Amino acid sequence: MSTSALLAQIDQVGRDRRRGGYSRHVFDGGERELREWFTEQARARGLDVHTDRNANLWAWWGEPGDQAIVTGSHLDSVPGGGAFDGPLGVAAALSAVESLRATGFQPRRPIAIVVFAEEEGGRFGVPCLGSRLLSGTITRDAANALRDPDGVTFAEALRGAGGDPEHAGADEAALRRIGRFVELHVEQGRGLVDLDRPVAVASSILAHGRWRFRFRGQGNHAGATLLADRRDPMLPAARAVLAARETAAAHDQARATVGRLVPNPGGTNVIASTVDMWLDARAPAADATRSLVAELSERAAEFAHDEGCELEVTEESYSGTVHFDPALRDELCASLGDAPALATGAGHDAGVLSAQVPASMLFVRNPTGISHAPDEHAEPGDCDAGGSALADVLRRWAA
Amino acid sequence: MSTSALLAQIDQVGRDRRRGGYSRHVFDGGERELREWFTEQARARGLDVHTDRNANLWAWWGEPGDQAIVTGSHLDSVPGGGAFDGPLGVAAALSAVESLRATGFQPRRPIAIVVFAEEEGGRFGVPCLGSRLLSGTITRDAANALRDPDGVTFAEALRGAGGDPEHAGADEAALRRIGRFVELHVEQGRGLVDLDRPVAVASSILAHGRWRFRFRGQGNHAGATLLADRRDPMLPAARAVLAARETAAAHDQARATVGRLVPNPGGTNVIASTVDMWLDARAPAADATRSLVAELSERAAEFAHDEGCELEVTEESYSGTVHFDPALRDELCASLGDAPALATGAGHDAGVLSAQVPASMLFVRNPTGISHAPDEHAEPGDCDAGGSALADVLRRWAA
Repeated sequence: MSTSALLAQIDQVGRDRRRGGYSRHVFDGGERELREWFTEQARARGLDVHTDRNANLWAWWGEPGDQAIVTGSHLDSVPGGGAFDGPLGVAAALSAVESLRATGFQPRRPIAIVVFAEEEGGRFGVPCLGSRLLSGTITRDAANALRDPDGVTFAEALRGAGGDPEHAGADEAALRRIGRFVELHVEQGRGLVDLDRPVAVASSILAHGRWRFRFRGQGNHAGATLLADRRDPMLPAARAVLAARETAAAHDQARATVGRLVPNPGGTNVIASTVDMWLDARAPAADATRSLVAELSERAAEFAHDEGCELEVTEESYSGTVHFDPALRDELCASLGDAPALATGAGHDAGVLSAQVPASMLFVRNPTGISHAPDEHAEPGDCDAGGSALADVLRRWAA
Repeated sequence: MSTSALLAQIDQVGRDRRRGGYSRHVFDGGERELREWFTEQARARGLDVHTDRNANLWAWWGEPGDQAIVTGSHLDSVPGGGAFDGPLGVAAALSAVESLRATGFQPRRPIAIVVFAEEEGGRFGVPCLGSRLLSGTITRDAANALRDPDGVTFAEALRGAGGDPEHAGADEAALRRIGRFVELHVEQGRGLVDLDRPVAVASSILAHGRWRFRFRGQGNHAGATLLADRRDPMLPAARAVLAARETAAAHDQARATVGRLVPNPGGTNVIASTVDMWLDARAPAADATRSLVAELSERAAEFAHDEGCELEVTEESYSGTVHFDPALRDELCASLGDAPALATGAGHDAGVLSAQVPASMLFVRNPTGISHAPDEHAEPGDCDAGGSALADVLRRWAA
C-alpha cells in the first residue's frame, strides 16, 4: 500500500472541529486511535510491535539487535495541526517495509519503525518528549512532573496509558541498538518548491526552545477600576509580543513567536491577575538564541515594571543547533539522485537523537510551505516519492 | 440569620482551584448548587419559589401581584471571581426578609427576591442575560443562539436545566409586577472607604459594552516560517491591547480593558491563524463609549493591515448610560442616614431594569475596592449593615 493510501486511512482520526485540522495529543482519543492503527498496520506487515518504557512504539522486522536501521516519526500533532507533520513519516515507513518485503528483500540488519511520543509537546509543553526521555536528554523526574493544561502530570497520563512512570527515562539498551536513524518528514517551508524537487535531505536545525513569561498584576473589575489604579499584566504581555518580533528581526535568521497566551482568569469584564505568554525562539547559533531570549526577558521585565507588575521567566525546553551527520547526509543526497540538502527551523526527534547516534532526515515537498496548520499539504505523488526514497535508503542500509 | 452568616454557608461552593476564587457559571455545578441553596433558604423563610421562563429564580412573600417590592441580585460569578459580587445581594435579601418576619411585619405589598441568571456573562458572553431577556432588551432568538466556549448554545443549556428555550424572552407579566426594585451589591471601588461609610446608594452606571475583535492571519510553523513570510494575528492584537489603554486615556473617565484573549489554535510552536480579543469599554456618555470603540476599531484595522491580516469587530452587548431613578435615589440617601450617592463603572441587572421600572441600588463598602478577583472583600459587619439597610428599605416600601 502506498504512503498516500495509508494516510488516507487516518484522514478522519482526531479531527478538531473547533480549531480546524487535527488535535492529536499524546494519550488522548485521536492519538490513541492512531497508535492502535499503527500497531495493526505493522503487525499486518509481519512486524513485532512493543511499547518502550517511554511510551514510544517500536515495530521490528527481525530480532531487535545492534546496528539496527531505524526509521519513524510521530503521530501526535500541534493543536489544530495538519495531516502530514508526523504521520507522513510513519506511513512512509510502513509503506517502505511493505514494498521491500514484496520484492523478497531479506535485511541483514534488523529494521525498526519507531513512533515517538509527544513530539510536538502539544500536551505537556516539552517537544520531542519521547526521544528526550529515551536518550536521557530529559530526566525521568523532570518529565514525570510536567503538567498538561488540566493539571494532569505526565506520570499520571503515562500510568493511565498502561505505562510505569517509575521506569520511564534513559533507555540505553534501546538507544544502543540504533545503528542509523532516518526520519522522513513533510517540509515546513518552500525550499523544495523553489528547487522543483520532491525530496530533500536535512542539513541542520536551528537552536530553539520554549520559555514561559508569567506577568503578575492585580486582578480587578474592568469597569470600576480607574486606569490610574490598574496593574494590568496584559499590557506588558502585549508589549513583549511586539518586542519578540523586533528582537528576532535584529538577529540574523532568528525567529520569535508568541502563539500561546493565556490571561488568568480570562473574563471579558475582568482585568487579568496574571498573563502567561509562551515564547518560541530560534536562531542558527545557540548563543544568538540565548542572547535573543536574554534581551527580550530584560525588556519584558521593564515593561512589567512600568505597569506595576512582576515577571517570572521559565525555560521549558531548549535544544542546541543540530548539524546532521555529514557522511550520512552526503550519502543520502548522492543516492537520491543528487537530492538537495536543506536546513530547517523545525525541531525533530531525529535532531534529539543526532547527538548520540548517526541520524538523518528526508523532507517531502510542501506546495505552500505551510505547516502546523490545517492548510499543511503534500501531494500524494510526492508522499509516495518520499516512501520510495525511504525504501531505497532502508534497502541499502540493511543489505 | 445575618447576611454574613448566610454567605459563610456557601463559602466552599464553586471554588476554582486553578484560577483562585470562584467560578460559578450559569447552570454549571457551582451555580446550580447555589440555586438549590437559595431555594431551600427561601422556603425555610416561608417564601414560594419558582423559576421564570428565563431561568431567573423568584421567591415570593405574599401572592405575586402588582406593585411588588422586589430585591435581589445574582449567584453566578466571573471566572475566578470573588465571594461577594452577586451573593451578597441575595444573602442580604434573605436576611432582610427573615428579620422583617421576626418583628411580625405584615407587608401590604408583595415582596419578592429575585436571582438573575448569567449576570456576568461569564458563560455566554452577554452580561445581565436573565434581566435582558425578561425585559425584552435581548430577543429570545439572539439569546438562544449564544454559545459558550465549548460550543453549547444557551438554548441547549437552558433545556438541560429544565427550561424551555421556545418560551424564553420578554416576560411582560413578570416585569409589570415590579413596583420598585432595589439591588444590594458590594462596591467595586473605594468610594465608601474614602468616605468612611458602610453603605451608599447608586447614582449612575457608565455606558458600557463588549466587542469581539477577531484578527485573521495565516497559521504556520513557528520555527520554519521566516519573519518576512508571516501574517501573525498576534501582532495586531498586541498593538490593539496597547491602543485600547491609550484610547481610553484620551477620553474623560473612560475605561478599556482586554481581559480575555484567545489565540487559535494556541500552540507554543504555532503561529496563530486567528486571535480573538474581547474589548470591554466604558465611558460616562454613550457617545464617548461609541467613539472610543470606533476609534480603536479603526486603528486595529490598520494594525491588522500592516501584518497582512484581517479584522472583524462584533458587538456582543451594549448598555447605555444609566441614571437611577432620582426620586428613589434621594429617598434612599435620606432614609439611610444621609448615605452618599456613588456612580459606578460596573453594570448590573438593576441598570437593565431601570429603563422600565423604578430601580435603585445599595452598595456595601469594599476595603480595597478590588472586585472580579479572589481578593474581593467586604467585612462581615459591613455586610450585615447592608442587610439591615435593605430590611429598612423593604419595610418602608412594603408598608
